[in-house]
Amino acid sequence: MPYSVAIAGASGYAGGEVLRLMARHPELEVRTVTAHSNAGAALIDVHPHLRSLAHLTFVETTPENLRGHDIVVLALPHGTSGAIAAELDDDVLVLDCGADHRLTSEADWARYYGGDYHGSWSYGLPELPHADGSRHGDVLTGARRVAVPGCNVTAVSLGLAPGIHAGLLRDSDLTAALAVGPSGAGRALKTNLLASELLGSAQPYAVGGVHRHIPEILQNLRLAGAESPTISFTPVLVPMARGILATITARVADGVTAEQLHAEYVARYADEAFVHVLPAGRYPSTAETVGANTALIGVGLDADAGRAVIIVALDNLVKGTAGAAVQSLNIALGLPETLGLPIDGVAP
Amino acid sequence: MPYSVAIAGASGYAGGEVLRLMARHPELEVRTVTAHSNAGAALIDVHPHLRSLAHLTFVETTPENLRGHDIVVLALPHGTSGAIAAELDDDVLVLDCGADHRLTSEADWARYYGGDYHGSWSYGLPELPHADGSRHGDVLTGARRVAVPGCNVTAVSLGLAPGIHAGLLRDSDLTAALAVGPSGAGRALKTNLLASELLGSAQPYAVGGVHRHIPEILQNLRLAGAESPTISFTPVLVPMARGILATITARVADGVTAEQLHAEYVARYADEAFVHVLPAGRYPSTAETVGANTALIGVGLDADAGRAVIIVALDNLVKGTAGAAVQSLNIALGLPETLGLPIDGVAP
Amino acid sequence: MPYSVAIAGASGYAGGEVLRLMARHPELEVRTVTAHSNAGAALIDVHPHLRSLAHLTFVETTPENLRGHDIVVLALPHGTSGAIAAELDDDVLVLDCGADHRLTSEADWARYYGGDYHGSWSYGLPELPHADGSRHGDVLTGARRVAVPGCNVTAVSLGLAPGIHAGLLRDSDLTAALAVGPSGAGRALKTNLLASELLGSAQPYAVGGVHRHIPEILQNLRLAGAESPTISFTPVLVPMARGILATITARVADGVTAEQLHAEYVARYADEAFVHVLPAGRYPSTAETVGANTALIGVGLDADAGRAVIIVALDNLVKGTAGAAVQSLNIALGLPETLGLPIDGVAP
Amino acid sequence: MPYSVAIAGASGYAGGEVLRLMARHPELEVRTVTAHSNAGAALIDVHPHLRSLAHLTFVETTPENLRGHDIVVLALPHGTSGAIAAELDDDVLVLDCGADHRLTSEADWARYYGGDYHGSWSYGLPELPHADGSRHGDVLTGARRVAVPGCNVTAVSLGLAPGIHAGLLRDSDLTAALAVGPSGAGRALKTNLLASELLGSAQPYAVGGVHRHIPEILQNLRLAGAESPTISFTPVLVPMARGILATITARVADGVTAEQLHAEYVARYADEAFVHVLPAGRYPSTAETVGANTALIGVGLDADAGRAVIIVALDNLVKGTAGAAVQSLNIALGLPETLGLPIDGVAP
Repeated sequence: MPYSVAIAGASGYAGGEVLRLMARHPELEVRTVTAHSNAGAALIDVHPHLRSLAHLTFVETTPENLRGHDIVVLALPHGTSGAIAAELDDDVLVLDCGADHRLTSEADWARYYGGDYHGSWSYGLPELPHADGSRHGDVLTGARRVAVPGCNVTAVSLGLAPGIHAGLLRDSDLTAALAVGPSGAGRALKTNLLASELLGSAQPYAVGGVHRHIPEILQNLRLAGAESPTISFTPVLVPMARGILATITARVADGVTAEQLHAEYVARYADEAFVHVLPAGRYPSTAETVGANTALIGVGLDADAGRAVIIVALDNLVKGTAGAAVQSLNIALGLPETLGLPIDGVAP
Repeated sequence: MPYSVAIAGASGYAGGEVLRLMARHPELEVRTVTAHSNAGAALIDVHPHLRSLAHLTFVETTPENLRGHDIVVLALPHGTSGAIAAELDDDVLVLDCGADHRLTSEADWARYYGGDYHGSWSYGLPELPHADGSRHGDVLTGARRVAVPGCNVTAVSLGLAPGIHAGLLRDSDLTAALAVGPSGAGRALKTNLLASELLGSAQPYAVGGVHRHIPEILQNLRLAGAESPTISFTPVLVPMARGILATITARVADGVTAEQLHAEYVARYADEAFVHVLPAGRYPSTAETVGANTALIGVGLDADAGRAVIIVALDNLVKGTAGAAVQSLNIALGLPETLGLPIDGVAP
Repeated sequence: MPYSVAIAGASGYAGGEVLRLMARHPELEVRTVTAHSNAGAALIDVHPHLRSLAHLTFVETTPENLRGHDIVVLALPHGTSGAIAAELDDDVLVLDCGADHRLTSEADWARYYGGDYHGSWSYGLPELPHADGSRHGDVLTGARRVAVPGCNVTAVSLGLAPGIHAGLLRDSDLTAALAVGPSGAGRALKTNLLASELLGSAQPYAVGGVHRHIPEILQNLRLAGAESPTISFTPVLVPMARGILATITARVADGVTAEQLHAEYVARYADEAFVHVLPAGRYPSTAETVGANTALIGVGLDADAGRAVIIVALDNLVKGTAGAAVQSLNIALGLPETLGLPIDGVAP
Repeated sequence: MPYSVAIAGASGYAGGEVLRLMARHPELEVRTVTAHSNAGAALIDVHPHLRSLAHLTFVETTPENLRGHDIVVLALPHGTSGAIAAELDDDVLVLDCGADHRLTSEADWARYYGGDYHGSWSYGLPELPHADGSRHGDVLTGARRVAVPGCNVTAVSLGLAPGIHAGLLRDSDLTAALAVGPSGAGRALKTNLLASELLGSAQPYAVGGVHRHIPEILQNLRLAGAESPTISFTPVLVPMARGILATITARVADGVTAEQLHAEYVARYADEAFVHVLPAGRYPSTAETVGANTALIGVGLDADAGRAVIIVALDNLVKGTAGAAVQSLNIALGLPETLGLPIDGVAP
């Protein structure tokens, strides 16, 4: 019998993508979907692409409606999941796609988000290497509270951690510039997210060290062995509905060669089903990952500049959010880590 | 009586944009347009947007067809303009939109392009500050041979030169990641430039220090006062026809504040008609510059990362190519620098 | 001395485009821009592409602020311009970019819009042929109240009127399907207009005879000589910021040949500066008209189907709105009809 | 043990999509992929999105390489599959994604394609209603030669057949205007398919009754009961990689009401897994079908115009090509018709 699932905030893009993935997962059955303004609406009217779930109807986001399921996924605005989560039983598996339980430092929370701090949960980035050589996914085994990473964070962390972990990249003075699709910003009605504004345009946002994903990236890099990492991080909205293309640079340690660096990444991710390092000299495009729980990585070294250039492509809604949730859920429940997750992208 | 103009290679995107700008310039009259495979075709069949030039027909690209004009613009593939230019009279104003006459170092030419080196011409980036405090545009006065800069080069050079010139930015270990539209790659029939490949995707290219624009950027920064600049430079194709959004970072000198840095850029470009620094905390999008000879710059400082973040937006075909050519031409001929050039973008 | 202009509702897309065109018009000077929620804001903060108008600031949309100018342009939501217009002096030239003064039939107004009917003004589609052989532009000479047509209406009317006028096309059972950019829907915060929703998608709207542009199209066709025209009209939003590509069909009268039909269109528009009929067998794309006051028309005949197929491309914000306003204004004031208006598009 | 599959022409977009779908099909194993210029290349280098098939390498397209499989899919240019097919054993299931075996009329073939006529195969549009009340899918049971329909044909046929079959729509004087993504045109290197040309533009093509899909549509409508159907058919390329949004109109028979028409479509497709009729007043967008084998239909009636307006959305590469091939294959082999086929789209 499949696990029963409730999804809170299921009318947004992240919630919709959790639904899409769960609809094809053989061990999960979505029984309850909740929403705020869409409560009472048929799911198919809000997500007309999810034909296989046409039987569901949104109900209000209340603890009562979420209780009684094996699994609860929270796809709520930042700052709102802490209170809801506190109402759920300890043995229910709860996955929070929002930011509320990602940061281990209350000071970071206060500086970048503010409001009540709800502590941190097991963090859902399985492929992250730890300083001690272990794979981060180990912490998810048997977990009942999982914080799903931010989408940009996943791209940058996967791109930097192996090199820093192996001592091939300096851990300070990192840079990352990301071309990102607007679906990462959600279904919010903001002028800059209008099609007329973004079609034919590239828009930077949260420039200059103020983006909320920065402390989360640094937290991950410290897990991987960085001592006092710093990063200049800039996302740029571009006219594609989904996708992240992260251009990451880091100074290389003395004497490191391009071959050595590339080989380290290949070795690090050799056994991973969802993270793939391309052959030397090749770099990924986001189209290759659309709809898939796949992160693709290209690794190069610009000897003149003394910097490695690492390109990471992923789908912000899958490996960046919903796929990470399902992958973490698989581990937490002792299912095969890849169960139900797409590996092939939808291209062109 | 207007100056007579011939444009070689006028069937491509750069040539088309030179035509568009010249059609509205009060002192220029395009008399001859040449092409290779399109010789014999009506201009309006190749550039159906240029209704005001429907009377023109492409002829072969030969010295004979180009002679007898006051101005010749070369919009030819790299490596082909040197030979043609040698056939033109010394008192004709020749502007080369290709790379052949940009680099002052024969070694750079050999490393990044190869083939015969034709020397360097007066370089068409008027707003570049020189180490001695002068404006680069001075070198264009009375010039008869002008090398038009590369589009990415213009964005990065305008973004870095003021800070380096003023000693506020370190001149080594620079980084630039650019979201660029495919028109900069020309009308070439390449698979990665197909609409099916680029729609919904971000594609990096020339990653890892191999891009031909790198030596040209460093040459400009040295003009502005850099001693031994290095830069990690990565362009990413995104699905917008035109535009460059450059995300540039540089380490700041000790003690430099965000206010100080911003004020320096404001002061540097205060008298420029085509380069504008946005108020502190604001950053440009490419849509704001489409069709205009305008570069917009946002200047920030991430104190935690110790890096300035400078965002430059421009239209690769206008300020990045054709507008730069016309602006340089205006200076060279003693016309008002802004004559005939659009300042307002076409948005949304 | 230039004419002084005030623009009401200048913070939207239509208002922004009026500003862009007027900024380059030699006989106009925009002195006042009004807005609702943006009152008090600098124009450059709302329209960062309009660098040449950076000195302007939005004021409230009140009769007081609009009075005292030679020309007032109303770019307000439907249903709101009637009251404002009534407060303006009779000798002021008022152009309404909204729908309030387009329909000559009060019954049509009641059915498609509702609310108070304010009568109809001189209608700003100069190239429309009248049944009596005259050019519609004649009615604009000396006009002081001008209703600017709807953008879809302009495309369909220009595409059908010559054939109907000449008796070559049947005037009933017409069809039009339009691929349109979202800027025509304005800067409204609606979910379906979000970039995430429209990127990679084509969205029909107002299907089944309910679109408000239908009575206006039929009104124009009757002017051109149609007796009882009917049209099936369907717009489809596609992911381009601006542009209309209208695919129009009409049954041909008995014995009409493709050559005859094409020749009629060529002859009809032969003297027009802004409407161009392509050679037989060629059809326009919207890119060819971006930023220009140009409508391009391709004319074909499918003998098997017994229908003419007429393709019209134009820029909804220029020939579809702001350019039509300026063109009408030129006629009304006795200026050259083409003064200040761009003929060349911005492509690619 | 799964059926073994060879795919000829697997390096194109249609072939790639067949691969994507077959990779997730539980009863199929792709053993051989052939190509022309890509022979010798690793599949993952040509289709970097198909990570699960990274073990495959392209071989030459020869009868020898295709023999020895249970199933052969031909995704070859028009005119080239006839000769190859003749070399394959009769008991092999061969599916032709090209046009060579679609048309039952040699005269149609000669007029629209030309070259050798190879006869027609069982036609892979299962949901098409026949005049006798049967479902077209019946002809596929046990078939060993299947012609996969053209993508535009599928959209228009599914949209018109029920109404014509039921006598609610007139079968002559039909119109269809389609917004289509460029992937339907394949990976061909043509100037009009470049990203620079299509971004921000809508381009009509094959206007005026010359499109090769017209005889195939009429053939289908005759199957459904039409006597002498005629259609005006115009496709328009728009800037989305995949998707077809067909706007179809037909005159309604006397006295037909909107409710009656809608009810007929609902009833016709009530048992279909892949074709869905939306509630009255709602119309689909293409994003809802991306990656899915789903066609969505909206049905309206414009009483003033006397025409039904039927909107059909589907993914040209899935329900329009590769999904139709797999669905037909499932029927031919006696597998469940929906096996392995995605129903949910990837949106936004």
